[in-house]
Amino acid sequence: MNRKLRMGMVGGGQGAFIGGVHRMAAALDNEIDLVCGAFSSSPEKSFASGKKLYLPENRIYGSFEEMIRKEKELSKEIRMDFVSIVTPNHMHFAPAKMALENGFHVICDKPVCFSLEEAEELARIVEQTGLIFALTHNYTAYPMVKQAREMVKTNLLGKIRKVVVEYPQGWLATPLELTGQKQAAWRSDPTRSGIGGSLGDIGTHAANLAEYISSQEISEICADINIFVEGRLLDDDANVLLRFNKGAKGILHCSQISVGEENGLSIRIYGEKGGLEWHQQEPNSLRYRQLDKPLQVLRTGVGDLFEITQAHTRIPAGHPEGYLEAFANIYRNFAFRIKADSSERLVLAETHDFPTIEDGVRGMRFITRAVESGNSEQKWIKLAD
Amino acid sequence: MNRKLRMGMVGGGQGAFIGGVHRMAAALDNEIDLVCGAFSSSPEKSFASGKKLYLPENRIYGSFEEMIRKEKELSKEIRMDFVSIVTPNHMHFAPAKMALENGFHVICDKPVCFSLEEAEELARIVEQTGLIFALTHNYTAYPMVKQAREMVKTNLLGKIRKVVVEYPQGWLATPLELTGQKQAAWRSDPTRSGIGGSLGDIGTHAANLAEYISSQEISEICADINIFVEGRLLDDDANVLLRFNKGAKGILHCSQISVGEENGLSIRIYGEKGGLEWHQQEPNSLRYRQLDKPLQVLRTGVGDLFEITQAHTRIPAGHPEGYLEAFANIYRNFAFRIKADSSERLVLAETHDFPTIEDGVRGMRFITRAVESGNSEQKWIKLAD
Amino acid sequence: MNRKLRMGMVGGGQGAFIGGVHRMAAALDNEIDLVCGAFSSSPEKSFASGKKLYLPENRIYGSFEEMIRKEKELSKEIRMDFVSIVTPNHMHFAPAKMALENGFHVICDKPVCFSLEEAEELARIVEQTGLIFALTHNYTAYPMVKQAREMVKTNLLGKIRKVVVEYPQGWLATPLELTGQKQAAWRSDPTRSGIGGSLGDIGTHAANLAEYISSQEISEICADINIFVEGRLLDDDANVLLRFNKGAKGILHCSQISVGEENGLSIRIYGEKGGLEWHQQEPNSLRYRQLDKPLQVLRTGVGDLFEITQAHTRIPAGHPEGYLEAFANIYRNFAFRIKADSSERLVLAETHDFPTIEDGVRGMRFITRAVESGNSEQKWIKLAD
Amino acid sequence: MNRKLRMGMVGGGQGAFIGGVHRMAAALDNEIDLVCGAFSSSPEKSFASGKKLYLPENRIYGSFEEMIRKEKELSKEIRMDFVSIVTPNHMHFAPAKMALENGFHVICDKPVCFSLEEAEELARIVEQTGLIFALTHNYTAYPMVKQAREMVKTNLLGKIRKVVVEYPQGWLATPLELTGQKQAAWRSDPTRSGIGGSLGDIGTHAANLAEYISSQEISEICADINIFVEGRLLDDDANVLLRFNKGAKGILHCSQISVGEENGLSIRIYGEKGGLEWHQQEPNSLRYRQLDKPLQVLRTGVGDLFEITQAHTRIPAGHPEGYLEAFANIYRNFAFRIKADSSERLVLAETHDFPTIEDGVRGMRFITRAVESGNSEQKWIKLAD
Repeated sequence: MNRKLRMGMVGGGQGAFIGGVHRMAAALDNEIDLVCGAFSSSPEKSFASGKKLYLPENRIYGSFEEMIRKEKELSKEIRMDFVSIVTPNHMHFAPAKMALENGFHVICDKPVCFSLEEAEELARIVEQTGLIFALTHNYTAYPMVKQAREMVKTNLLGKIRKVVVEYPQGWLATPLELTGQKQAAWRSDPTRSGIGGSLGDIGTHAANLAEYISSQEISEICADINIFVEGRLLDDDANVLLRFNKGAKGILHCSQISVGEENGLSIRIYGEKGGLEWHQQEPNSLRYRQLDKPLQVLRTGVGDLFEITQAHTRIPAGHPEGYLEAFANIYRNFAFRIKADSSERLVLAETHDFPTIEDGVRGMRFITRAVESGNSEQKWIKLAD
Repeated sequence: MNRKLRMGMVGGGQGAFIGGVHRMAAALDNEIDLVCGAFSSSPEKSFASGKKLYLPENRIYGSFEEMIRKEKELSKEIRMDFVSIVTPNHMHFAPAKMALENGFHVICDKPVCFSLEEAEELARIVEQTGLIFALTHNYTAYPMVKQAREMVKTNLLGKIRKVVVEYPQGWLATPLELTGQKQAAWRSDPTRSGIGGSLGDIGTHAANLAEYISSQEISEICADINIFVEGRLLDDDANVLLRFNKGAKGILHCSQISVGEENGLSIRIYGEKGGLEWHQQEPNSLRYRQLDKPLQVLRTGVGDLFEITQAHTRIPAGHPEGYLEAFANIYRNFAFRIKADSSERLVLAETHDFPTIEDGVRGMRFITRAVESGNSEQKWIKLAD
Repeated sequence: MNRKLRMGMVGGGQGAFIGGVHRMAAALDNEIDLVCGAFSSSPEKSFASGKKLYLPENRIYGSFEEMIRKEKELSKEIRMDFVSIVTPNHMHFAPAKMALENGFHVICDKPVCFSLEEAEELARIVEQTGLIFALTHNYTAYPMVKQAREMVKTNLLGKIRKVVVEYPQGWLATPLELTGQKQAAWRSDPTRSGIGGSLGDIGTHAANLAEYISSQEISEICADINIFVEGRLLDDDANVLLRFNKGAKGILHCSQISVGEENGLSIRIYGEKGGLEWHQQEPNSLRYRQLDKPLQVLRTGVGDLFEITQAHTRIPAGHPEGYLEAFANIYRNFAFRIKADSSERLVLAETHDFPTIEDGVRGMRFITRAVESGNSEQKWIKLAD
Repeated sequence: MNRKLRMGMVGGGQGAFIGGVHRMAAALDNEIDLVCGAFSSSPEKSFASGKKLYLPENRIYGSFEEMIRKEKELSKEIRMDFVSIVTPNHMHFAPAKMALENGFHVICDKPVCFSLEEAEELARIVEQTGLIFALTHNYTAYPMVKQAREMVKTNLLGKIRKVVVEYPQGWLATPLELTGQKQAAWRSDPTRSGIGGSLGDIGTHAANLAEYISSQEISEICADINIFVEGRLLDDDANVLLRFNKGAKGILHCSQISVGEENGLSIRIYGEKGGLEWHQQEPNSLRYRQLDKPLQVLRTGVGDLFEITQAHTRIPAGHPEGYLEAFANIYRNFAFRIKADSSERLVLAETHDFPTIEDGVRGMRFITRAVESGNSEQKWIKLAD
């Protein structure tokens, strides 16, 4: 297949935040065209949004059901290749299921579903259909996160002992959801977000990042889950002790009431021989510590980096790439995978990986168990059953 | 005009660096489609490059002359709206002139031409045709640079006294041009670059940034121009004293032999009441100093920023935007200007500005006078005639 | 009393680290003279050390008992005023007790004793004698830590919600104690350190700092205590969830196996209206975050700082003061307190405070309960009885 | 000589800044006792200052002449060993001359004299007497500056090409001298400061630092010297192009009107193979750049540092040492030199160096030539005759 892929979008109408992110990410690398969308549960809003995106009227739909049905009827030469789902959590499962069952690949925002049960069901559907499913845990797509993972995998750090991952934000330090702010409203609403507040919105990113870099799985947790803003229905802060399956210990904390913090995802990881530190807000740097040696600051584009790092960087050293570029890495890799044949796909899974439905299930399990731990007097809760 | 604009590209074939940047910048905001190109002076290479970009064969051209001629013959519904010129410096003038004279708007990489004379001639052509001409001095398109400029213009700093602008790089610390590295080869070749080496490649960016933020024009310079790498034909380092037309004094230094520096463009500017500091490699922060008050770190997306700052930011605080997003701001603003009617254009020139042919002429004059100063025993050289 | 105070030292002979720190700290402000010492349990070593310090032979003692006994016999005009105790933990109680019971004030390194029981006994002795006792939790003596505490006390941050305090080091990532390194040897030896390893050496500093700045007391903890280096007898890493007595939640982690970390004590604290961040390795800066406002970087010597902040700074802005200066603040304040009459002492306790025996008891309780928690399956352990 | 040295001080009475710095620096390392002083040209103020310093009345003098005369009459067992001169510039020469001519070593604040002529005369006196003379260009006494110098000397950077040294301050951005502020008053008064304002106060530090680290001498300069604050009599800002005697080019700029800057002395130096960067406000770090390798951040106390670096550090990694510790290094080295015999002195000059009268003469020449250049239309002015 030597052509650009065609994307249909579910959600992401005017006023949304993440829809625009997905569209820019999809557009960046000239591999994907947005060809249709059901941008809102309100057909009028969907139509208005689609017009703003210069879509032809006959490719703007009033619902995801209509979109999937009608696109399927179009000829192979013009119908969409995959669906991008950028709705709130409770609206992930249904369009994903329907898309997959009608033969469309799916790329979906995180957390993957409203509940662990939905996620497990979706995993079964993905497996049955054999289609490609990508989850936009975008932070693991930064080149320096790839670099960090490879450094761990090639044993440059020795056996990993400690992981400190955190994700502080401050935007929900006041009851913003009461002001009508759309992002705050659904994220703090259990009927749309699920049982996790900060845990689902950002805690899962942190957990995913920690597992991705460490190549270890979180096996047990002990959580203190907090609601600081009066009247809020979901957690806005969480402090969690971690134990990993290959012996590392650690801490995860996420917060949306840490006044003045923007989007402060960071991770530090220490092994027997070395340590790494990465900050999402300064993503092109990776601090590398070794026993009795000077700190090294690895930078995208400088010196001997792993091939996978270079494969996720577009421009030379000193030209900062950011959030959208990392997000675009997932879209590009997803597109490559779709276009590849099955043997190429195996190679691409190593060199151009992206988060899958399995990461989605793990994320939902993390949310579920963390909330359980927060309500429990039992010290350690196992993450897997 | 309610549609995406259609872009034709000159240059930017395989192996080029800046062509890809322009394409990603053009694609990001869903306002522009690449529809055709003459990507190389070799028709074979142009064709191969266009295929990789998924262009139809009949829109891939063997030369810019062919492209302009044939596109002009196409119907209004499909022909390109503007030309993007991403060739080395000596190949800017001819395609720009021909495009303008055939009714196409132009966006062009910097420095605008091979020589000051060419630039002045091109300025006349732009004026005569009344078409839109944009120059990709991309660094002034960062949101925090817009913020800095507005802070100066609204007198938050008081009368400007001192400007320190610098642009250190290290990639030419060795004779890289002798290894066949394409970027190094043409940049150090006077027949392709013109009379400036580091001065043209990066010194003009620094000068443009200083004038843009300070709202003052450099009026006199005193330069020490150096070639440190043996055998190199153009300057690889320059130290320049600056005097501005409204009383500020300053320093500009640029270098391509500052080992280990990546793309370290930065500026500090001090007025009677306040100071600002901005670093291109950490572009979402702007340091603001006031008399006897704590340093403030202004950040994209945080607090009360000027409207123009917000208009050049896409995503919320803490989601780093970088080089490509700033570059895309120029493409998006250029597209807005083209689509606007003449009264809207006046407003857009304030709210969605971009560098023009006048900046291009000023840049060529800076290069020319700096080289002149470097060869002179006269202390101060006037920039304007 | 208008003269310099006279200090006798217990411990701190050649090869020690903290003894020299205490001496420099005592000397810095021209308020204290070192007049005598029992620098080692070996009289020969004590004598050699004293000679190097230019002490007269008759004021160098073979044991702390001899020092206290003989100094007491000297005339008021020359005998020491107070004792500085800089021995390993198991050698704090005995000299402190004897000094106090013989009328000498005491300044002592932390943790205050070998065990909680000793600390509680020492608290009774301090109370009975009415003498001054200072504990060198030196980190709370940094000017920007004073500033932070005052900002919390004057409600600039609103009600405190979250505290993240950490103290990573990497120097014990390998079994350094097996190489004969003196500092490592006693710190990892339960017969000299007590039951805490990293918890006693650095965890107590972190806990003290958190309570000092937040003006809240840690009330409950949940700890995961680790020994990563094989064969080590005391913890070299700890991750602890915190709950405070006025509603804050938090995290404390300390580590001596975090490869490449030097002495990375830092704290972040978030209230309803603002947040603060301080790093020991960059001690002259305090980051201040507010709702929807730019980050401010408060700096020693710049702008409107609290009086107590200024009273703990010696030199103007931009002249970095460090660890020794903070340490010296405790010695200077201790000297001021000794020289003051009782009404002045009340004022000084506010304006020139230092850690006391109560901080010492709290620190020992923190160590004790944290170790208990680490060995327990009970989730929360109360800090007080 | 196995005893502490005895210091007499000229200047540094109440209200002074640098006098206290010298006293703390002298006290820190237990090598020097302050035994007498003439702290002010007003005998009353001198007496009041001396009392505050706990000096006996008979060692507090009304003038430096009295001090030198009377101390000379005291027995060898108690009289001062050396004089510390901490007065404004115009009061350096006379006490230095008289002290030397009466057999006392001298340590003196910078710039060494009021004029180049005085400095050259003083150099002759130092040579004639054979006594030790130290100049407190304290910034070259930071351990990481020693490290940088050694890295250049051992050719780790290759041939040095470029030096960028700067010293921005903002404290004189307003006419502070009109408010009676003592520090501002004499520094902006040509009858007390000499012909240099910012050039003498801080520009000389920058020039000294550049020569010290690069092991090259500034040979030619081209200066733009500014007075920005209306009515001020001496320069408050200077921008200077530099050429060095072994081929390096560079820039020096100093400023006292750079609003919000504290004491921002920094240097960057680039050779054929590597680059270094050091900031006085973060003095324990030294950034080391190499061709195509990650940036290294060398830190005091970490890894393989040169012996001379370690000899100027007191405490382990991560315990920040600052301005006073660097200043103290000069006092300690000066004391070592005085106590040494002549063969030891040769070794100490390498391992425990400090700035001498020669640095003082060079500094005065730099000020003189820079002012000359600022007033000249000649592009390059030679520094030496």
